[in-house]
Amino acid sequence: MAIEGSAVEARQPRIRLGMVGGGAGAFIGAVHRIAARLDDHYELVAGALSSTPEKSVASGRELGLDPARCYGSFKEMAIREARLKNGIEAVAIVTPNHVHYEAAKEFLKRGIHVICDKPLTSTLADARKLKRLADASNALFVLTHNYTGYPMIRQARQMVRDGMIGPVRLVQMEYPQDWLTENIEQTGQKQAAWRTDPAKSGAGGSTGDIGTHAYNLGCFVSGLELEELAADLDSFVAGRQLDDNAHVMMRFAEKDGVRAKGMLWCSQVAPGHENGLKVRVYGTRGGLEWVQADPNYLWYTPLGEPKRLITRAGAGSGADAARVSRVPSGHPEGYLEGFANIYSEAARAIYAKRKGAKVDPAVLYPTVDDGLKGMVFVDACVQSSKRNGAWVKV
Amino acid sequence: MAIEGSAVEARQPRIRLGMVGGGAGAFIGAVHRIAARLDDHYELVAGALSSTPEKSVASGRELGLDPARCYGSFKEMAIREARLKNGIEAVAIVTPNHVHYEAAKEFLKRGIHVICDKPLTSTLADARKLKRLADASNALFVLTHNYTGYPMIRQARQMVRDGMIGPVRLVQMEYPQDWLTENIEQTGQKQAAWRTDPAKSGAGGSTGDIGTHAYNLGCFVSGLELEELAADLDSFVAGRQLDDNAHVMMRFAEKDGVRAKGMLWCSQVAPGHENGLKVRVYGTRGGLEWVQADPNYLWYTPLGEPKRLITRAGAGSGADAARVSRVPSGHPEGYLEGFANIYSEAARAIYAKRKGAKVDPAVLYPTVDDGLKGMVFVDACVQSSKRNGAWVKV
Amino acid sequence: MAIEGSAVEARQPRIRLGMVGGGAGAFIGAVHRIAARLDDHYELVAGALSSTPEKSVASGRELGLDPARCYGSFKEMAIREARLKNGIEAVAIVTPNHVHYEAAKEFLKRGIHVICDKPLTSTLADARKLKRLADASNALFVLTHNYTGYPMIRQARQMVRDGMIGPVRLVQMEYPQDWLTENIEQTGQKQAAWRTDPAKSGAGGSTGDIGTHAYNLGCFVSGLELEELAADLDSFVAGRQLDDNAHVMMRFAEKDGVRAKGMLWCSQVAPGHENGLKVRVYGTRGGLEWVQADPNYLWYTPLGEPKRLITRAGAGSGADAARVSRVPSGHPEGYLEGFANIYSEAARAIYAKRKGAKVDPAVLYPTVDDGLKGMVFVDACVQSSKRNGAWVKV
Amino acid sequence: MAIEGSAVEARQPRIRLGMVGGGAGAFIGAVHRIAARLDDHYELVAGALSSTPEKSVASGRELGLDPARCYGSFKEMAIREARLKNGIEAVAIVTPNHVHYEAAKEFLKRGIHVICDKPLTSTLADARKLKRLADASNALFVLTHNYTGYPMIRQARQMVRDGMIGPVRLVQMEYPQDWLTENIEQTGQKQAAWRTDPAKSGAGGSTGDIGTHAYNLGCFVSGLELEELAADLDSFVAGRQLDDNAHVMMRFAEKDGVRAKGMLWCSQVAPGHENGLKVRVYGTRGGLEWVQADPNYLWYTPLGEPKRLITRAGAGSGADAARVSRVPSGHPEGYLEGFANIYSEAARAIYAKRKGAKVDPAVLYPTVDDGLKGMVFVDACVQSSKRNGAWVKV
Repeated sequence: MAIEGSAVEARQPRIRLGMVGGGAGAFIGAVHRIAARLDDHYELVAGALSSTPEKSVASGRELGLDPARCYGSFKEMAIREARLKNGIEAVAIVTPNHVHYEAAKEFLKRGIHVICDKPLTSTLADARKLKRLADASNALFVLTHNYTGYPMIRQARQMVRDGMIGPVRLVQMEYPQDWLTENIEQTGQKQAAWRTDPAKSGAGGSTGDIGTHAYNLGCFVSGLELEELAADLDSFVAGRQLDDNAHVMMRFAEKDGVRAKGMLWCSQVAPGHENGLKVRVYGTRGGLEWVQADPNYLWYTPLGEPKRLITRAGAGSGADAARVSRVPSGHPEGYLEGFANIYSEAARAIYAKRKGAKVDPAVLYPTVDDGLKGMVFVDACVQSSKRNGAWVKV
Repeated sequence: MAIEGSAVEARQPRIRLGMVGGGAGAFIGAVHRIAARLDDHYELVAGALSSTPEKSVASGRELGLDPARCYGSFKEMAIREARLKNGIEAVAIVTPNHVHYEAAKEFLKRGIHVICDKPLTSTLADARKLKRLADASNALFVLTHNYTGYPMIRQARQMVRDGMIGPVRLVQMEYPQDWLTENIEQTGQKQAAWRTDPAKSGAGGSTGDIGTHAYNLGCFVSGLELEELAADLDSFVAGRQLDDNAHVMMRFAEKDGVRAKGMLWCSQVAPGHENGLKVRVYGTRGGLEWVQADPNYLWYTPLGEPKRLITRAGAGSGADAARVSRVPSGHPEGYLEGFANIYSEAARAIYAKRKGAKVDPAVLYPTVDDGLKGMVFVDACVQSSKRNGAWVKV
Repeated sequence: MAIEGSAVEARQPRIRLGMVGGGAGAFIGAVHRIAARLDDHYELVAGALSSTPEKSVASGRELGLDPARCYGSFKEMAIREARLKNGIEAVAIVTPNHVHYEAAKEFLKRGIHVICDKPLTSTLADARKLKRLADASNALFVLTHNYTGYPMIRQARQMVRDGMIGPVRLVQMEYPQDWLTENIEQTGQKQAAWRTDPAKSGAGGSTGDIGTHAYNLGCFVSGLELEELAADLDSFVAGRQLDDNAHVMMRFAEKDGVRAKGMLWCSQVAPGHENGLKVRVYGTRGGLEWVQADPNYLWYTPLGEPKRLITRAGAGSGADAARVSRVPSGHPEGYLEGFANIYSEAARAIYAKRKGAKVDPAVLYPTVDDGLKGMVFVDACVQSSKRNGAWVKV
Repeated sequence: MAIEGSAVEARQPRIRLGMVGGGAGAFIGAVHRIAARLDDHYELVAGALSSTPEKSVASGRELGLDPARCYGSFKEMAIREARLKNGIEAVAIVTPNHVHYEAAKEFLKRGIHVICDKPLTSTLADARKLKRLADASNALFVLTHNYTGYPMIRQARQMVRDGMIGPVRLVQMEYPQDWLTENIEQTGQKQAAWRTDPAKSGAGGSTGDIGTHAYNLGCFVSGLELEELAADLDSFVAGRQLDDNAHVMMRFAEKDGVRAKGMLWCSQVAPGHENGLKVRVYGTRGGLEWVQADPNYLWYTPLGEPKRLITRAGAGSGADAARVSRVPSGHPEGYLEGFANIYSEAARAIYAKRKGAKVDPAVLYPTVDDGLKGMVFVDACVQSSKRNGAWVKV
């Protein structure tokens, strides 16, 4: 029953972490903090948590930060922390999308590792610039496409890679939600307000917020590269400027002699779905199905045999899932554990960087390339939809 | 616990039924016979069961038919039975698609009611001709889009009609299967052979065989009319002439002020799916989900409230489902019962016809119009796919 | 996809069937009629459907029976039909329990096969007498423990017999319902009234009505024989005379070197359960789980391997299930099909009897022995509960 | 979507925590450490992690502990830490059961709060002594019946308390596992070895290890007190000294005019179950069902209405669940989060203790009383089974 040693690694000093955004009331900031803490690899020591120095200090106090390291802006934090002897080694950027690029830039150029929420940026132009910056920097850039941290997503990826379903023909992705079924952005709901505001979110609404997750996951599991897509986007709620529903058809680049196809549906107006992220991949010899709400299960059907339920850390679950598991099978791990896996993978890379060592090739986290792909996806969806669903190359 | 009287209706003499196709080894013929028998409304008395007189007689003997009424061709049966004093009143046509039109014509023009398997015909031209014939005939034309006979599909339709989910924004349909993942049409599998042969099936493979079911069901439940579609069809299996996978985006005609959208996926190469027909409908105030493999359940989420599991004949299940239910809730009804409901609805209409009475408006079965819509759908899919996924009006 | 020939057997003349009970408004009578009709082995030709000649004739007319063969009593029917040239060959007894014995006696002694609803009788004494009568008679006695007709129950039984889970250690049975949570027997609900009346039901309430089903199924699948039980029975609803909830611990006779144990829970006061029959069997090398509401699935876990979902007529499903299946996997069969399987198995035996031939050993239906075991089970439950849960040998 | 402020509380200095047991390779020690860390209320600063000073120091280094505070025995740790200015305020005891009592004693008598794994002790006598010690101590005693930390278990408890299912009639508990199906204690599996050793585990095998969890949860949710039980225990695996399967019937004390009944099944030899903990509670007006493997769901059926799926932090979920939730509905929380809730509830009590303030009555964690009840339950199971399943008062 024990997963021997899974949570006990030779201890290195914790990584000193700063945070941009994530002040009181922000959902995703709290998630990042728990994720950073869960496996004990990080210590939060500084923050530019809010848009004013006062609020930032107040939020910092709540989190037990030294007020002297609670900054009024990310730029100030970057400059000051870079000069400190024990300044931050990494920063988590958890602001609305339009801030990602400018914030990341300040840290990357000072050699501070960046762990950034997705989507990468609010514009494709920013994304391309950030890609160049990240490539040029010695610091790591980690994008929290957190669903790739779920053990059974790792398991699915391993099974595809190992040929257990044969060459892939189909990838079906969906991420329906219902929280924007009504016009709650007009009622002061803070999360809804910025997510439906093009100035803060960028060109994509549901496509950027959740479609990128589904797309990222489909590629992560299948190992395929998108070639072109055709999209039909809608804003069903009156007055909404960004898409709240998207239907996308996809064509992937040839791999193993097959040109795979896919569909993606993301929606924020689908009553009955909280976070209905689901990925299905079908090959010539089998199929896989995974659902985010029940993340410890992976359904696997070898063609012509009964469907099998592989459970996290249970029978049939392999090395890739085991590396990111903490508790025995039958005891569910959830969203925070998956999120923490991204942080812990990043920590393993940062530990190696500290020592000038090579990063273990098993270490796996989403990068700026994944982020750029996501932005290209959003842009292609928007372009295609404007051109009445014409196919757009990516 | 009892559904009082549900199976006990004032008895009329059984309807005399003939069958075209459905000889030994045919799956769907046996299904039609059970469906006809289940509620005791029909008596099979004649057949043109196979393509030669000898085989037809042999198959008829197995079914207990009078050899004198086992015919070598549907035309012979139509002519002879029309002249008999107690000749057949109705005929079930259960052949491959390319025979439907010619067979139906012979019976309709002689005033014999036709119960025909789907898709309506193998070509759109035939479908249009059959539509005209059926409209001109005094006889009924019933298409066995059998899934519309499932009680919880009736329930879903009623709930949409009653406004329980508000105006519909989204209709998501899928029907994945895996039985044609490999090239079994080359190995002598009879069902596979004709279904992948354009001469027998028509222009659509998976689109005709199962896509039409999913499309029919999406419209049946939502009450919407399709306006245009964009499709991407594939034949993943080498050498296969007809589509074995289809991705379709849909735009529906405005209703209640909303222009709904939809997606449809049908596939015969998706390992892990036997008959994975699923329909989901989302409105401004709620959502519905139904899965064919678990047909006694309907998932209903009123926006902002917990999801509810409505069961056939159970709490929350209404009049439309009750009329086509036989046993108490918690005792599952299945595919054959749903299929039988089409036959029994047809019987109610035929009983009324016998008496020259009006058919009870609650009686509901798919008609030639539904069949024509299905053929238009297949044609539009094929046209769109040929034109690289361009939108095609229907 | 086709199950070749499954529904097409060489046709024999239909078996002439009579029915005792099952007049208008009776749930189970209608079920028996559909079950008899489904595979076309029976023709209902006579009935003593109600307790008065007038009602019996009226009910008979509704069913299309010849009024001359609608009798005022089962005794009259037995006497008259036995004398007719084409009198009934078999009779279905679908009355409340207290009538079973007297009715069955009249037919058995005249060589008319009996298909009788469960539980066998209302008293253990009657059950023992009926056992002797049935053993002495040349006619068949078939008890409709209908759940043994479900294909995946046959599959489970085959897998246990074939050693796929090793020697059995545990059998867990449950059958919760909620329809008697309130005192509906006082409100004129006919089904509730007789089922809660000791004079009509016998000594057991939930134990007799549904506990016997669960017990029968546990033994059927596991192949074990009960040795002793300890029971705690309750009548939670004020004024109710018979048990509406029973907790039972079981010890089975040694088999394959193991003395298996079991638990059984049946309840009619468990809100949320319609017909929650579930059977789980665990051996030294694997486990099985089956749920009546989702009867086309059998969950199988070989020890140390992932759980598998075996589907009716799908991959991993064997010969025992195939013989009683009609439609391809992924198209659900339900309660009526399972019930019909008992009738069709009986028909196969009756056909053999007609010819004086041996019954195919694969033919399987519950007998008077199963019925007697059920009565002994009910009696033991009642005795044990009276003696404060002492162990009672069976 | 955000649960505003749920993870951001006014920050107090972290609680200084020690740990007894939990050295390298121990499953539950790692779980306790993550649970303590997750909400940032504790800082692990000392440990008596293993049975020798060397191993303890080695394990401590791995965890980043000061070697000077890695002790060779819990007694040494208690004595030394009690004298330190910033010595530990609380200790987590995560050893095999037989060490709990002696260890807890040393800390309680020095005013150090104890957070102890379950079952409380290895003998009932120890449990009674520990109860007296805990009652007499000013320090808190918290037992990690961690499943009571699951939000939807809190939700279920609240719904019962609020009368949403009416007075409770039935409580059905089960906790099947399969990891001891074979004799792995003979193969060097460390977890199995001590858990099947009476000297370390105590008189109960499965009853102590998992039966106590199920029993605790049944009482926690239903609010009922057990009055007597009848048990049938087995050791199915040859050579095993402790029970690996238990069947238990229960009678609860009268509440709201009803004397409820229950069943409990725990097993470690049930192939197909990883940690199959399930609790079902039925009242006169509704029923509830919760399954540990899918802990974010609570099934609720109001009598006569459709079943509802209440999700953690979703619609229908109330205050009790919200206080112990971190992320929005649809993003699953798991075992570690539930476990962390016990630690965080304890922290809230310890914070109050620090200030001499009253503990918020909403704060809820299992106490020594729950632990004693668990030990009485195990003892009663063993006694009853020895007396052939006689009813034993608790």
